[in-house]
Amino acid sequence: MNSIINDIEIIKSETTKIHDVDFDNLAFGSVFSDHMLECNFKDGKWQAPKVVPYQAISLDPSAKIFHYGQSVFEGMKAYKDANEDVYLFRPLDNFNRLNISAKRLAIPELPENYFMDGLKALLEVDKEWIPKQDGSSLYIRPFIFASGNGFHASPANEYKFLICTAPSGSYFSGKVKVLIEQTYSRSANGGVGFAKAGGNYAGQFYPTQLAVEKGYQQVIWTDDTSHEYIEEAGAMNIFVRINDTLITAPTSDRILDGITRKSIVELAKAEGIDVEVRKLSVHEVVEAAKNGSLKEMFGAGTAAVISPISGFGYKDEDFELPELEETFASFLKKRITDIQTNKVEDPFGWRYKLD
Amino acid sequence: MNSIINDIEIIKSETTKIHDVDFDNLAFGSVFSDHMLECNFKDGKWQAPKVVPYQAISLDPSAKIFHYGQSVFEGMKAYKDANEDVYLFRPLDNFNRLNISAKRLAIPELPENYFMDGLKALLEVDKEWIPKQDGSSLYIRPFIFASGNGFHASPANEYKFLICTAPSGSYFSGKVKVLIEQTYSRSANGGVGFAKAGGNYAGQFYPTQLAVEKGYQQVIWTDDTSHEYIEEAGAMNIFVRINDTLITAPTSDRILDGITRKSIVELAKAEGIDVEVRKLSVHEVVEAAKNGSLKEMFGAGTAAVISPISGFGYKDEDFELPELEETFASFLKKRITDIQTNKVEDPFGWRYKLD
Repeated sequence: MNSIINDIEIIKSETTKIHDVDFDNLAFGSVFSDHMLECNFKDGKWQAPKVVPYQAISLDPSAKIFHYGQSVFEGMKAYKDANEDVYLFRPLDNFNRLNISAKRLAIPELPENYFMDGLKALLEVDKEWIPKQDGSSLYIRPFIFASGNGFHASPANEYKFLICTAPSGSYFSGKVKVLIEQTYSRSANGGVGFAKAGGNYAGQFYPTQLAVEKGYQQVIWTDDTSHEYIEEAGAMNIFVRINDTLITAPTSDRILDGITRKSIVELAKAEGIDVEVRKLSVHEVVEAAKNGSLKEMFGAGTAAVISPISGFGYKDEDFELPELEETFASFLKKRITDIQTNKVEDPFGWRYKLD
Repeated sequence: MNSIINDIEIIKSETTKIHDVDFDNLAFGSVFSDHMLECNFKDGKWQAPKVVPYQAISLDPSAKIFHYGQSVFEGMKAYKDANEDVYLFRPLDNFNRLNISAKRLAIPELPENYFMDGLKALLEVDKEWIPKQDGSSLYIRPFIFASGNGFHASPANEYKFLICTAPSGSYFSGKVKVLIEQTYSRSANGGVGFAKAGGNYAGQFYPTQLAVEKGYQQVIWTDDTSHEYIEEAGAMNIFVRINDTLITAPTSDRILDGITRKSIVELAKAEGIDVEVRKLSVHEVVEAAKNGSLKEMFGAGTAAVISPISGFGYKDEDFELPELEETFASFLKKRITDIQTNKVEDPFGWRYKLD
């Protein structure tokens, strides 16, 4: 049953899995919609994308993704409002960042229309999969990986770009307790930390496991030279509130240019909150915790939106954060999700309505 | 046609591709033998490995290898001597390093007998694929990757361990010209640089492409903090000869503990060569090049064995290395390959004969 949407060929699934899904009790990213977008790079160029049934991928054992880690991805969400209109949030920023990541990993960059028209066609076909429930959304995972073959340690000559989607609930439930890392590191100066590259995540799992064994849920990454400066929180950017100032580290070649991060910076400024984008030392945070001026810490990212932190560990000492009635975290989370889900005006032009 | 070798179940291919292969003109790692070893981690443990026909792998699009880069590998070689006896080189060191890499990437460690007995069974079945030609060998690629599903950024619950083999000729032909990198980095302090993790290779491709555009073939990696210290050469360890002293950087959490590297250190010492394992600054190498005491530089690794360097670029200046009649590189390459291929005695106990 072929058709065309936005110039994209559609090959529809003959069955649907949607009736097996309990949309009122969704986990994060573990059930997948009926279709996916598939686009192949071969013969030196990206071939036309197609919407196809969600299906297994067959690869030669020598495919370079298995050996040399050439993979990049994005995380996005689609939201339905009360009228069942569908919205994305700053999707061109995801597209641009995907290509920034791809370039650093020597993966060929993708044409904008293949990404945007492909995504729109996919969401049109799987529109029923976008949850209407408050706090849920359709998590969207665009990714590119090296599918070309051979054991030579060099870039592949073939790649696959796919977009898969998963109706999802919250990423974290409740507050998390974090460990300020003093041994392991997430990224190097001149490395790939700014890219959403697969290898950046694999390298975090073991240190995170060690932190979990000590009773924390996430790691706060510090710079690899001195472990003196706070960089990221697990797979999120991090914000720290000292008195009434909200502080986050500047982006760099080690820190992901998070879309939620930069939206929060703009939103907080527009709301009259004092925001500082600057290097933030562990020393300053510990001192603020000791003298009572540390009011909040939270992670920010597409999957978790804003994830409040209840306390942190640093060199065998634990610090609790205060339980405030009104937090920047909950205020900003409501503001941003209200904009995302079309509950309020969007003065920033971030919301992107699908036709 | 099932059978058992070393307690490993064998499912034989019904056909062979061996007659299509020109063993006198082998490239590196681009034709693959008839069989592979396959071993799956599920339900919390590694399941019994099997030798199966070399075949495509089918994975869900949400398999974590595509998204979070959990993959590690090894490089080994099998050699045939004049009697057609088959030898490996320090295979237990590869096994141990694979598990060291796996642990850092939060991949479950593999039992030694699954690795060694599986490898032996595979080589027994594909014995005809081991080249007899001088300078050629059967390149062996053990690797493990995350095959479990889901978009949650956490370690997978299923993995695949495979060993594939490829009859191979030389990795590089001739000498290479290298660029001492001053912008990009390979690894962070506290990172995964010591592991043979896929992501370490993907991150090198783009800086290497930039070096190739400037007329070099490989990058010499320096530390990410100051770019003052020489660490690795492309995907190899690096040795520098100043006067008659052979110098290589000590291993660290940023530098791979290369099996060829440590063999060369031992071999050179046993041959009475003055060897220093110590930090080596770019400044020292440049000064040595200027005053004529820099005699040789070479990379060392399983794939290339020893790869001589003809010159290097540093901050827009090019330095040529002298053309010596007798080099440590060619002397040590002959010594190590003679040991590997059973042409000479092996006083170190490195050679490992297959029954």
